[in-house]
Amino acid sequence: MRTSRLEAFSDGVFAIAATLLVLELRVPADEPDLTHALLQLWPAYAAYLVSFLTIGIIWVNHHTLLEHCRRVDRRFLYLNLLLLVAVGIVPFPTSLVDRYIVSESGATAALVVYGLGGLLIAIGFAAVFFYATHDGRLVGDRVSARQIRADGMLFPIGLAAYSVGIALAFVAPLASLAVYGLTALFYALPLLPIADRR
Amino acid sequence: MRTSRLEAFSDGVFAIAATLLVLELRVPADEPDLTHALLQLWPAYAAYLVSFLTIGIIWVNHHTLLEHCRRVDRRFLYLNLLLLVAVGIVPFPTSLVDRYIVSESGATAALVVYGLGGLLIAIGFAAVFFYATHDGRLVGDRVSARQIRADGMLFPIGLAAYSVGIALAFVAPLASLAVYGLTALFYALPLLPIADRR
Amino acid sequence: MRTSRLEAFSDGVFAIAATLLVLELRVPADEPDLTHALLQLWPAYAAYLVSFLTIGIIWVNHHTLLEHCRRVDRRFLYLNLLLLVAVGIVPFPTSLVDRYIVSESGATAALVVYGLGGLLIAIGFAAVFFYATHDGRLVGDRVSARQIRADGMLFPIGLAAYSVGIALAFVAPLASLAVYGLTALFYALPLLPIADRR
Amino acid sequence: MRTSRLEAFSDGVFAIAATLLVLELRVPADEPDLTHALLQLWPAYAAYLVSFLTIGIIWVNHHTLLEHCRRVDRRFLYLNLLLLVAVGIVPFPTSLVDRYIVSESGATAALVVYGLGGLLIAIGFAAVFFYATHDGRLVGDRVSARQIRADGMLFPIGLAAYSVGIALAFVAPLASLAVYGLTALFYALPLLPIADRR
Repeated sequence: MRTSRLEAFSDGVFAIAATLLVLELRVPADEPDLTHALLQLWPAYAAYLVSFLTIGIIWVNHHTLLEHCRRVDRRFLYLNLLLLVAVGIVPFPTSLVDRYIVSESGATAALVVYGLGGLLIAIGFAAVFFYATHDGRLVGDRVSARQIRADGMLFPIGLAAYSVGIALAFVAPLASLAVYGLTALFYALPLLPIADRR
Repeated sequence: MRTSRLEAFSDGVFAIAATLLVLELRVPADEPDLTHALLQLWPAYAAYLVSFLTIGIIWVNHHTLLEHCRRVDRRFLYLNLLLLVAVGIVPFPTSLVDRYIVSESGATAALVVYGLGGLLIAIGFAAVFFYATHDGRLVGDRVSARQIRADGMLFPIGLAAYSVGIALAFVAPLASLAVYGLTALFYALPLLPIADRR
Repeated sequence: MRTSRLEAFSDGVFAIAATLLVLELRVPADEPDLTHALLQLWPAYAAYLVSFLTIGIIWVNHHTLLEHCRRVDRRFLYLNLLLLVAVGIVPFPTSLVDRYIVSESGATAALVVYGLGGLLIAIGFAAVFFYATHDGRLVGDRVSARQIRADGMLFPIGLAAYSVGIALAFVAPLASLAVYGLTALFYALPLLPIADRR
Repeated sequence: MRTSRLEAFSDGVFAIAATLLVLELRVPADEPDLTHALLQLWPAYAAYLVSFLTIGIIWVNHHTLLEHCRRVDRRFLYLNLLLLVAVGIVPFPTSLVDRYIVSESGATAALVVYGLGGLLIAIGFAAVFFYATHDGRLVGDRVSARQIRADGMLFPIGLAAYSVGIALAFVAPLASLAVYGLTALFYALPLLPIADRR
């Protein structure tokens, strides 16, 4: 089974989920002081940025994984579908963070849901990753066993990071959001050298 | 006529219809008890999951069918367009189920519309499938007559399942939604061995 | 310049414009009589169908044209962009027809705007078509001059049909919508034999 | 690393951001005088056109740049992701301009935000452009050093144009919008001869 159409469908979901995030950026119509309303919207800008980067960086990793796959099978398509279910849901926790991060009562719940969404993506990506790389099932010989082991170690770290973010949601909402942003960047940074090795 | 661009347009509609589903997941702004509001939203989560999986699994089957097609013709493009009309409408019955499954009066109507949407997709997919495979019109020799007959038997079962779901909507709304979810999984599960046969 | 990426961007706009149409299908939350509200929504179903088919059939024609192009140039990209501006706007007149076709005062204005949108698409497609086919600029030798002349005759007919629809909007709104639907089908039907000739 | 999937994801974001713009075109339901309401909507039509053309023309330039790239690396993917963050945000300033350009107090703030969005895109595109072309890093020999220098000079002009638009927002909002529209056209027009040279 070719990987090209799997990529087209996945890219569509990634791109749409990222671009739908902008629909959460809105001020009420006929706001008397627009400048003030725009400045008040900073949690929405932060959440847009964190969520867009999270989706974009997962996409880069998905792209890299599929480049190493010689083929995919139907079971891989279904695991990938579960990952896409998780990616497609991102605009929902993002909209919660937008609107509740500055509220007394709702910030914790919003950030817990955001962290659960992140955990879902991390678990979905881990499922796709380990299915594809286990015993070199779908991945060709080009990728060394050593690199796969190194990449595989990122998943427990990601799960731990989202868990820390969820715990922080109960005591320090803004710190929780910062942890989610750093987790996205963490998935981007350590993989940079891979580009050079190839 | 090449199949690649048909796939790109179809993948776009599948991916967008699936990703738009998330727009139905929303709590009212400034909800005093967000945790409670989020838990109340369980029908929306269930409907999101069922609809995303339905679209995703139809996509896998569409993908498989087109991989077997050596070429497509204009009549196939128009039948495929009717399938996409049905796929594109999914967010509408999903939003009805989200909001009415726990209501006294609306649950039946919402689930009937959901089932009609499912029937429409099943009929659209059957039209595309039988047009492509009849007398091996578009499908190459690689696919054995036996496998096409086996796949073709799935359609009457799907039509029956959606009909059962519509009937259940009048007596047991939650059972109806469960039938729709199982129908999606049914289209996924029996086809798994096919991946191994190839 | 390759045509593949032009197709990807165009397919994206076509697919998204078609799939966004579903967002106009909605009943107010907590409607006491959902069945009645769903039946009242028939103009929205009709408008969804007419607009989805219009976009889908324009897509088929766009697809056919680009298959005949050996290459595209930058001027073609800009003309194509103007066509996409017109295609992307379709959900707006569709939402007007949804909501105003049964109103005393608004039906005419809604259907005039719908017809203007159709004219814009017809003009945009004509611009792309004549630029590509004039003196065989981008189109290869495979396409006979006779077929291009035959296809080119469809444009004045389309412009006339949308003009008739706009005129009918002032006297018989439902007849106007029927004309728009038939225009979409008209673009589909006469081209069917072309598929056989190839 | 192949450029094809980068293009698919980018095309998705470009196409969706452009097509989501239509969601800002709306009149209130049951408007008594629809014709009047539609005419009042002219700022929304202007903003739709300017934003769609801006995204479309950036897409053409992105397309041209990637055609000259023999390969991309991971750092390029991340810079491209920042460009897409900026492109994906366009519907937000567009919706502000739609609703506030005719208001006493909000027009300046809306047009400043619009200009900042334009600056963000220009900076993002410049980052992608200079990373790819510096020392011929990703770009092959086909492109002459002279052409790259000519294209590179467009960026300071674009930054200056958006800065002028932001300054004009404080004194003449409509002139500011006109500058943004002309900036989009400016990116389209001077590059036209390139198509002929190739």
